[in-house]
Amino acid sequence: MTLLKKALIFTGACAAPTMVMGQDADTAAIATEMIWIMNTLLFLIGGFLVFFMAAGFAMLEGGLVRSKNVTMQMTKNVALFSLATLAYWAFGYNLMYPLGSWSVQGVLSGVFGTGVLEAVGVTLANADDASYAATGSDFFFQLMFCAATASIVSGALAERIKLWPFLFFVILLTGIIYPIQASWKWGGGFLDEGGFLDFAGSTVVHSVGGWAALTGAIILGPRIGKYKDGRVNPMPGSNLALATLGMFILWLGWFGFNGGSQLAMGSVGDIADVSRIFANTNAGAAGGAVVALILTQVLYGKPDLTMILNGALAGLVSITAEPLTPSLGMASLIGGIGGVIVVFAVPLLDKFQIDDVVGAIPVHLCAGIWGTLAVVLTNSEANLGTQIYAILVVGFFTVTTSGAVWLILKATLGIRVSEEAEITGLDVSELGMEAYPEFSKG
Amino acid sequence: MTLLKKALIFTGACAAPTMVMGQDADTAAIATEMIWIMNTLLFLIGGFLVFFMAAGFAMLEGGLVRSKNVTMQMTKNVALFSLATLAYWAFGYNLMYPLGSWSVQGVLSGVFGTGVLEAVGVTLANADDASYAATGSDFFFQLMFCAATASIVSGALAERIKLWPFLFFVILLTGIIYPIQASWKWGGGFLDEGGFLDFAGSTVVHSVGGWAALTGAIILGPRIGKYKDGRVNPMPGSNLALATLGMFILWLGWFGFNGGSQLAMGSVGDIADVSRIFANTNAGAAGGAVVALILTQVLYGKPDLTMILNGALAGLVSITAEPLTPSLGMASLIGGIGGVIVVFAVPLLDKFQIDDVVGAIPVHLCAGIWGTLAVVLTNSEANLGTQIYAILVVGFFTVTTSGAVWLILKATLGIRVSEEAEITGLDVSELGMEAYPEFSKG
Amino acid sequence: MTLLKKALIFTGACAAPTMVMGQDADTAAIATEMIWIMNTLLFLIGGFLVFFMAAGFAMLEGGLVRSKNVTMQMTKNVALFSLATLAYWAFGYNLMYPLGSWSVQGVLSGVFGTGVLEAVGVTLANADDASYAATGSDFFFQLMFCAATASIVSGALAERIKLWPFLFFVILLTGIIYPIQASWKWGGGFLDEGGFLDFAGSTVVHSVGGWAALTGAIILGPRIGKYKDGRVNPMPGSNLALATLGMFILWLGWFGFNGGSQLAMGSVGDIADVSRIFANTNAGAAGGAVVALILTQVLYGKPDLTMILNGALAGLVSITAEPLTPSLGMASLIGGIGGVIVVFAVPLLDKFQIDDVVGAIPVHLCAGIWGTLAVVLTNSEANLGTQIYAILVVGFFTVTTSGAVWLILKATLGIRVSEEAEITGLDVSELGMEAYPEFSKG
Repeated sequence: MTLLKKALIFTGACAAPTMVMGQDADTAAIATEMIWIMNTLLFLIGGFLVFFMAAGFAMLEGGLVRSKNVTMQMTKNVALFSLATLAYWAFGYNLMYPLGSWSVQGVLSGVFGTGVLEAVGVTLANADDASYAATGSDFFFQLMFCAATASIVSGALAERIKLWPFLFFVILLTGIIYPIQASWKWGGGFLDEGGFLDFAGSTVVHSVGGWAALTGAIILGPRIGKYKDGRVNPMPGSNLALATLGMFILWLGWFGFNGGSQLAMGSVGDIADVSRIFANTNAGAAGGAVVALILTQVLYGKPDLTMILNGALAGLVSITAEPLTPSLGMASLIGGIGGVIVVFAVPLLDKFQIDDVVGAIPVHLCAGIWGTLAVVLTNSEANLGTQIYAILVVGFFTVTTSGAVWLILKATLGIRVSEEAEITGLDVSELGMEAYPEFSKG
Repeated sequence: MTLLKKALIFTGACAAPTMVMGQDADTAAIATEMIWIMNTLLFLIGGFLVFFMAAGFAMLEGGLVRSKNVTMQMTKNVALFSLATLAYWAFGYNLMYPLGSWSVQGVLSGVFGTGVLEAVGVTLANADDASYAATGSDFFFQLMFCAATASIVSGALAERIKLWPFLFFVILLTGIIYPIQASWKWGGGFLDEGGFLDFAGSTVVHSVGGWAALTGAIILGPRIGKYKDGRVNPMPGSNLALATLGMFILWLGWFGFNGGSQLAMGSVGDIADVSRIFANTNAGAAGGAVVALILTQVLYGKPDLTMILNGALAGLVSITAEPLTPSLGMASLIGGIGGVIVVFAVPLLDKFQIDDVVGAIPVHLCAGIWGTLAVVLTNSEANLGTQIYAILVVGFFTVTTSGAVWLILKATLGIRVSEEAEITGLDVSELGMEAYPEFSKG
Repeated sequence: MTLLKKALIFTGACAAPTMVMGQDADTAAIATEMIWIMNTLLFLIGGFLVFFMAAGFAMLEGGLVRSKNVTMQMTKNVALFSLATLAYWAFGYNLMYPLGSWSVQGVLSGVFGTGVLEAVGVTLANADDASYAATGSDFFFQLMFCAATASIVSGALAERIKLWPFLFFVILLTGIIYPIQASWKWGGGFLDEGGFLDFAGSTVVHSVGGWAALTGAIILGPRIGKYKDGRVNPMPGSNLALATLGMFILWLGWFGFNGGSQLAMGSVGDIADVSRIFANTNAGAAGGAVVALILTQVLYGKPDLTMILNGALAGLVSITAEPLTPSLGMASLIGGIGGVIVVFAVPLLDKFQIDDVVGAIPVHLCAGIWGTLAVVLTNSEANLGTQIYAILVVGFFTVTTSGAVWLILKATLGIRVSEEAEITGLDVSELGMEAYPEFSKG
């Protein structure tokens, strides 16, 4: 949702203080300040739920890599979230919401502690404060989306990328690449003006993470031994209980991701919308999981847990571009098609020898594109051409910028650990610390 | 709480807009719409907390089964929640709240996307919308209770049941069996009219899951080698850290389970009640855990962690039927007796050679019955005869219907994996995927 | 924040019902009851988030001990939280908030179920109810802080302390020691009157847990083999994925810890403050993690995951005494210095042969002291002398009282397991139950 739409909602709520319940016309209206408080509360609750997705990504990835790379995967996930926090504060937020206030000085002042966020007063007297909610809550909420984008990348490139080059990429992704393209939609930029619809970010968040991961995976190359003599060599995850936990945490966080993107819950209409979004988000995930369950049974004769986990996540990504307008049945269907996409995209990537350790590209890029297109099925304001145009523009921008960054990093620092380090495992070779030092490896 | 009581509360709140704080009589009253918004928010927060219990059950069960069955247990838990979502949407919700609107057409239209839930508008103009909160939020909240019932069953029958027959059972349990009996109490049916009290579902949710688990466990039979020559052969869980995490997640989710069942927080009285429920729920869990800790020390000379975990859960189940009226001390006592029950019921089941892998029957059925009876200790509106009558009616219904389903499944698909598959472990034999492929088994 | 300040805020809110948004002076004001409802809701949300920190501590500690002590660490964490619940109910809450109502009878009546908490009505008619929120919600919220203090101790003393003496200590810590010193600040006692500032408890909670842990660690002595011939023998944690999960859960819970300590969100000013606190808390954690990442790379040539996890936690502890007044940049800096402290305090403790298994003393005590001092950097009401005075008073009180308890326990029950039991591992020797019975130990 754009800032513009947010402003309209708020104005609407103010303009109609007499829209009370049915017959009881003399009942008190909702105080204007109360609407502001409730919107802020939505950002705070939504924000901590999306924050917890950082743990979800860490557990999912930690469960799907081999045990010799788990410490590294944990290190990457904690570090990327922390660096995203700093980068989004220093550059990202001001780049993303440049309305009126963005400038080189603004960015510099952000870095040195006197920027927009520093000026936020605790009362409404401050003209810089957002009109619909506390700026602090908005920053908190938006930061979590930005960080999620980086989490997507870390899974795909696991088990062979060097730590520091990856973290440099994260800083650029979260401080610059993500915020610039996000401003095109959520900062009221040209995609938003052109009518592009992406409620909670199937394109703006998930496909961007997916494109960056795809670009990185191609430039980085597959893990040693993954593709040999034209055959795909499976490298099973070391802890499927942990991966399942990660998936459930992500599912939980998604209620904040999609529900919070309503950006308002201070009116009956808004919170009824948030309610529908919660129910639809859940339905989308369930649809994706069930379809992956059935499809892997049919195709392979056995259900595949990792596909089911990714099916649920693909269902969630699919319903993210439009979690409000579908019926519950339609939400399950949209999510279910996400599940189909995952089951077919995973082997397809392998065919091209693109090695995505956790399935992040099928889940976030492929289902993200599908979800963005699926908006036209239920939202009459959506235009298929506009949706495709936005997917292509965002994809082109992300692939070229992140591709440039990956290539520069490759040419300078190098992005890949040595062959020996990769075979030994990154935990021992790069960090000198095993995740499960006592458990004998089979 | 029944729909009727909900309506009364809401009417009450509307009728008394002048009940303001003490001396300050001219202060503004709470806007009627604000009450509706707050009630809806309670369902959303309560709902996401209860959702997370799905992860709690998965981790608890994944930690208490042997490592050769962990992938299967994860698969079952993700699949059962997803299927419960679809079944409750297609049939369950309309069966459970049939007031006026339930019909064959209603169910069919639910399936095909034009049912009650589809008609929910985002404004109050829609006459079908619930008068006390957004229907979407109510559906979201109620769904989580329904799914919890199925989660209870999966733990008891672990390590030997076939995946697909189990999932067929889940569909029938969540789509039909649970909703029908829940409608007797929470849909305003005959148990509710008869004065049966079950605040958040010691009987309606927990004992139903427990009865279905008990029936299944008897029909399915114990695991190979569990009972041999009259002796009980312990089969320790593979990951007690994971089981402990699961217990904590369930404890967390229970604040939503019991607190959300107040169904309202838009008045001073309601949110003060929710507060007491939170504190009492916590006290009940603590009581159960402490009693199990002391009792296993006394009986066995050593505290037993799995008993302590189940003691906390039994404390939670015990306080679920009436988390509001007890004092904190009484709540701990009620929970503590739940802890006693678990410590004695676990070996008792073993005496009857009923093999309940995670202790779901002692926790959810035995403590559920106790909690339902304990309502009479603190709630003067409760009648012991009525409570017993409801326990028996719900038990009889659940045992006969789920028993019939289990027997039909046994006679047709078969419900038990082959002896060889069970000994090898379900992960390799049924799914071809180990949960911890790299850790050598001792 | 003290009860006094709470009351002032509430009075302020009541006194200014016409402080509405900008130009729109005739808009309805927030209903007085609504402020009360929102404050209560903040305690409930904050409370369940801080509750979840119990799981965070358990996972962090379970991941950082060796696998032979994991069952014991889980047992301790579940038991300590449960016992803290009972002790804080029976004694602690009444000791901590003695304003007017505290007495021997009050405590006794609390024990027997008719104390202050039992008298809390569900309406405001009850004069004993807190004027700013539901007493039930306040008890629930405050209990979680008390329990966190005990969780801090359990990590430091892991792998060699006897279960029951530790639990006796927990009862005294949570029932008496913590509440008495907490009343000096949060009960409106002499430290509060003297102008000591400690927003959410860098001193009141974290340093108290840290002092109790330090005293216990010195009296208990290091693990066998930890310090040998002047060298430190590393004893790596058994499951770094679990430890990372624990850290993320703690980070999540901290939003409730610090945000809830605003104690009010029923006005625009309060919820804008809560928003800033959320953002600053996150910034502090990120600062601590990033600094530990860079510093361990520089010092040791390799990033150290356990230091990064503790760096994030130290950042959180550092920002806890004043999460509101710093800018985001300053919050990261304050947290970052917490990260520096951890990296240097961990080896320093080893130099003194003080064996702190999980790094609880550097994180909670050292960073707690730093955070308390750092208040003067951004809050002009703070006085450095007063802050130092309070740190010393609380430290002296906690060290002497907990030291006396440890010494009495040592002289009577004994606090340390036998050498044989320690080498075998507490799980088998003390509990007869392994956490990971199937995984071969390397």
